Amino acid sequence: MAKEKIDEKGITARKAENFSEWYVQAIIRSEFLDYSDVSGCYIFRPAAYAAWQKIYDAVDPELRKLGVENVYFPVLIPEKFLSVEKDHIEGFAAEVAWVTHAGDTKLGERLAVRPTSEAMMYPTFAKWIRSWRDLPMRYNQWNSVLRWEFKDPTPFLRTREFLWNEGHSVFATEGEARGERDQILNLYVRILKEYLALPGIVGRKTEKEKFAGAVESYSIEHVMPDGYGVQGPAFHFDGQKFARSFEIKFLDAEGKSSYAWQNTYAISTRELGVMVATHGDDKGLVIPPKLAHIQVVVVPIYKNENKETVMEFAGKAVKLLGEEVRVRLDDREGYSPGFKFNEWEMKGVPIRIEIGPKDVEKRQVVLVRRDTGAKSETDLGNLSEKVNLLLNEIHKALYLKAEKFLHDNVHTAKDYDSLKKILKEKGGLVSAPWCEDQECEEKIKAETGAKITNMPLGQGKVDAKCVYCKKKAKTMANFAKSY
Amino acid sequence: MAKEKIDEKGITARKAENFSEWYVQAIIRSEFLDYSDVSGCYIFRPAAYAAWQKIYDAVDPELRKLGVENVYFPVLIPEKFLSVEKDHIEGFAAEVAWVTHAGDTKLGERLAVRPTSEAMMYPTFAKWIRSWRDLPMRYNQWNSVLRWEFKDPTPFLRTREFLWNEGHSVFATEGEARGERDQILNLYVRILKEYLALPGIVGRKTEKEKFAGAVESYSIEHVMPDGYGVQGPAFHFDGQKFARSFEIKFLDAEGKSSYAWQNTYAISTRELGVMVATHGDDKGLVIPPKLAHIQVVVVPIYKNENKETVMEFAGKAVKLLGEEVRVRLDDREGYSPGFKFNEWEMKGVPIRIEIGPKDVEKRQVVLVRRDTGAKSETDLGNLSEKVNLLLNEIHKALYLKAEKFLHDNVHTAKDYDSLKKILKEKGGLVSAPWCEDQECEEKIKAETGAKITNMPLGQGKVDAKCVYCKKKAKTMANFAKSY
Repeated sequence: MAKEKIDEKGITARKAENFSEWYVQAIIRSEFLDYSDVSGCYIFRPAAYAAWQKIYDAVDPELRKLGVENVYFPVLIPEKFLSVEKDHIEGFAAEVAWVTHAGDTKLGERLAVRPTSEAMMYPTFAKWIRSWRDLPMRYNQWNSVLRWEFKDPTPFLRTREFLWNEGHSVFATEGEARGERDQILNLYVRILKEYLALPGIVGRKTEKEKFAGAVESYSIEHVMPDGYGVQGPAFHFDGQKFARSFEIKFLDAEGKSSYAWQNTYAISTRELGVMVATHGDDKGLVIPPKLAHIQVVVVPIYKNENKETVMEFAGKAVKLLGEEVRVRLDDREGYSPGFKFNEWEMKGVPIRIEIGPKDVEKRQVVLVRRDTGAKSETDLGNLSEKVNLLLNEIHKALYLKAEKFLHDNVHTAKDYDSLKKILKEKGGLVSAPWCEDQECEEKIKAETGAKITNMPLGQGKVDAKCVYCKKKAKTMANFAKSY
Repeated sequence: MAKEKIDEKGITARKAENFSEWYVQAIIRSEFLDYSDVSGCYIFRPAAYAAWQKIYDAVDPELRKLGVENVYFPVLIPEKFLSVEKDHIEGFAAEVAWVTHAGDTKLGERLAVRPTSEAMMYPTFAKWIRSWRDLPMRYNQWNSVLRWEFKDPTPFLRTREFLWNEGHSVFATEGEARGERDQILNLYVRILKEYLALPGIVGRKTEKEKFAGAVESYSIEHVMPDGYGVQGPAFHFDGQKFARSFEIKFLDAEGKSSYAWQNTYAISTRELGVMVATHGDDKGLVIPPKLAHIQVVVVPIYKNENKETVMEFAGKAVKLLGEEVRVRLDDREGYSPGFKFNEWEMKGVPIRIEIGPKDVEKRQVVLVRRDTGAKSETDLGNLSEKVNLLLNEIHKALYLKAEKFLHDNVHTAKDYDSLKKILKEKGGLVSAPWCEDQECEEKIKAETGAKITNMPLGQGKVDAKCVYCKKKAKTMANFAKSY
């Protein structure tokens, strides 16, 4: 990009002071994402798409190992299908983008641009599945979906179009279906930790917050730097609900016909928003090494008289790293080293290598960590090893920092006053006992603006009174203002 | 799948007698593709999507090596953008699917479901590109596109939705732009040969047949078993046409403003149709090994008394291959070996391994090639090596056969009578001298039904008269009835 453009576009907002303004500046000005002329639909620039592609590269082979196969179903869904499952259509009707014309021809039936594919897949599943031999059928597709929300969009976090995987499984028994939950949630938790350096809280959604059409929904929930909650990857146990609506039946070994059991699950590009929000700082993005489009940028520092020797040495360094890591030599003319430093820091490149005349004399390079700014030297012999160690260290440090932030922002409220106080003064997730009565959930939301993000799994028996109605609590629930 | 289903659904049409019926049966009954309720939009079942995913796996890293980066632009395109480039909108207007409503709200402007992304990308390119330093900009995206043709659809070959890569490059000079053509066409030719086992004829499209908005279009053309031509991957040199319409300008090193030079290129899921049509036979599909979802199927043959020893030996064989190749053990109960043979042959699995009691005694397995039916034995010690050799042999054999077919179906006509005669009696591509006058092209099409597929590259100087008007010919052109 041209110099003048960057100068206009440095990041001016402070993350701690004005998070939402910082978030947009960091994403847009670093050329990670851009606006399109369709409100709520964003443009993934190379660094953002590369990060998503690396999530795909990590998740897809793991699904294969679990026995999940990829398929592709059409992007357009006939209105009659979308209306089959009552709760499902109620949940999506308001957000569906409708194709009504092709060329100048009015279509006989409106077609929905895929908001999710249950309604397109399940009539076909009903046709494909005949006997127990066809089960389990575990399918997945990678695609884009469109949900026409009218709330203000936020890059990655609330967008009309987003990219995701949508897993759709069909089992013969409830036990098998329920057994898939931990396979998928554990996979997502591991990917978030090992690739995005993100922790999350795994739990069950409430009846009010569950997916439209699901029997039970489970989610991985994050806390954003502004203390708001945001839902991450999700897994939905559909029981036989869709199976009954779409007549997905199979003959068991005894020749008896039964409805199948189904699940769905997804991880979406929303996680990229959580990732940049969590790790970024006032200089811009901080991209975890495994998802970084460029992991190492080499910036040569020279004057005319020593340009040749510096460039030659820099070339050596790049060559040494070339196979091991994703490295870029910034040999652009007419930009000062300082300008280049700022630009690559804004883009979140994990490691910067500086090479000046003195370094060449010493046959060394200077390594600068994006996350801490810490500098260290190494000779070329150890460069590749040192860089790989550093990339791992940076990943670990980002995860530990994010984990500490999450820990520091999950609070416990013993009563309703403290719940309100914490939500007002600290934000974050507030754990409180709940009777599982939707009326309490709705009143708390009305009075505090906080919804229940999820009810963490693995919590022991709860011996407490509901934070709102004081009746016996059935679970601990996390309350938060959310995206 | 349940047995009764297969029995209903064996392939009854003969490829040589009724190609179009055979083609549909082979694709649908082998569970490669299925119909959806939206006419012209098909469902990619696991084997078909796996084949496409392997094309992606092969092409995408090669684009990276060329310096192409992936991006993602929204699926919806505002009507005002689509109308900017005159020839472009004229080419697509009749085929555009229009989103007019979101939920119950009528949109202020109609939005096109992406038929191709020039109109969505180029206003943004104009914003992103400031100076020569931003060029070349070589972007690509993998997505689905929708073109609402009203002709009868044919699976893979003429569909309303298909998957593809769309490359969009911007260069500072015409020379650089033109230099990209052979990089991309050579890549596609190599992928077709090494993965799909398909040859093709590389050439330039006529003015009449070129892409809507392009200055010059180039294509790789195939001949189908029924003698019809079908266009494969394409590369379009757009010159400065879109740049002038969308104001894509840059400041050169001297600070002078110039319009950029652009190209686009694509390979699509249509190639899967050419692949199965070319290699398949009356038993069903024949999938080239590199694109096969399952490369080797192991079918144990036993009676109750020797089931255990056979299954144990079969398990060993699978284990030996497990890491090396994509292998499936067909241990389904209640299906005869013969039934299993037919089923996997219909699905086009390259190698079948048969293991019976006698094989176990001899510590060997029987390998059966899908393409030739040839059988051979090998002991477990050499199994993995033998299988890999065989997979390579099968690929080579498929390619040579396809190459011979293409060679046998490219004819030369010295005059208009022989052109008509060959088109009528033999079909295939007919090479004939042409004056490059569109009037001759259109009259030939009107009188014979044949269009010009392309004008092969690398042809020497043509010293002949136009096959139609007898004026001096400028090129040899390939005429064919086409999909």
